[in-house]
Amino acid sequence: MERLVLHEYAQSGNCYKIRLTAAHLGLPLDRREYDILEGETRTEEFLANVNANGRIPVLQIGDRYLPESNAACFFLADGSQLIPADRYARSDMLRWMFFEQYNHEPNIATMRFWIAFVGEDRLNDVQKMQIPGKREAGQAALALMDNHLKDRSFFIGNSLTLADIALYAYTHVAPEGGFELAPYPHVAKWLERVAAQPGHLAMDA
Amino acid sequence: MERLVLHEYAQSGNCYKIRLTAAHLGLPLDRREYDILEGETRTEEFLANVNANGRIPVLQIGDRYLPESNAACFFLADGSQLIPADRYARSDMLRWMFFEQYNHEPNIATMRFWIAFVGEDRLNDVQKMQIPGKREAGQAALALMDNHLKDRSFFIGNSLTLADIALYAYTHVAPEGGFELAPYPHVAKWLERVAAQPGHLAMDA
Repeated sequence: MERLVLHEYAQSGNCYKIRLTAAHLGLPLDRREYDILEGETRTEEFLANVNANGRIPVLQIGDRYLPESNAACFFLADGSQLIPADRYARSDMLRWMFFEQYNHEPNIATMRFWIAFVGEDRLNDVQKMQIPGKREAGQAALALMDNHLKDRSFFIGNSLTLADIALYAYTHVAPEGGFELAPYPHVAKWLERVAAQPGHLAMDA
Repeated sequence: MERLVLHEYAQSGNCYKIRLTAAHLGLPLDRREYDILEGETRTEEFLANVNANGRIPVLQIGDRYLPESNAACFFLADGSQLIPADRYARSDMLRWMFFEQYNHEPNIATMRFWIAFVGEDRLNDVQKMQIPGKREAGQAALALMDNHLKDRSFFIGNSLTLADIALYAYTHVAPEGGFELAPYPHVAKWLERVAAQPGHLAMDA
């Protein structure tokens, strides 16, 4: 494979997903850090050369740039056992990855970013008014996961797939955004299971 | 293939995507309509049998239920020319589909739903305060698409893929949410190109 460079902010769960996928696959990944709190992904150079959407992560593959965390994970894992070979299971994995970006990340990751990184007293009025709704929607996402996991070891089938990796990234740090995990015991057990997999890599590694 | 049933609200772009994908593939699709404005996807029966997340669309494949519009499109198109065979192009297609669900749909589709379906004067305060941010973010999504399409006929390569189908669904009705398309001439031409493809199906067909 061509040289892989991850353009990232290390504390972002979206960036961590890609590192965790690469670790499970044994793929070497160079890393380039940007301080998103200082606007380093909104510079003219970043917008022109890395991602016109002004966001990290971006996976650089040789001289091509692939934004969107879950697309980057799919690129790395394509053809590996992290993506099910069965047609329905493969789409069901994508279902959980789209759920992650639509129902989970905008609530659980955004609350973590607002509370633990920006600081609640520095939020503007529009952000502050969204907190109760995001808290409720984040809890609903965790409850849905908990219900799915009550008789399963992993999201799809009997082994780790990208669905687990995508959802692990922000779930395991959800308490930093004020989401207690005690009400979701199947989620808590699944977090331990994912972290115990051979090849696992911690977020701060 | 097993019998396919689309659980849907016909005016939803997320549901239309699946019908459009099936039309291009020549796959027959039975349809079952739910009135989301009347809460018909939040009933106990729907949550227990169709989708615990209380949302449409859900693609029923025999006795299995697959939520998330873009996952359902992927299931239908898997192995067809609507998904590129090249590894990078396939992930780049997913990149635009994740962009659609993260940056496009929550702004452009939500504004359409709020204005054209719920009615602006029936919105609550939290929703009303989000309108300027959603308008700006929706315009940014359209500008990003326009820039990408300035020297391309389709989002990926030289032919229609799921990236075009996913983004067409809510873009072609964006004016219903107050988004003018005149500032995005490459988007406007691409909309015409997608609608002129053999096998195209209109949203109200």
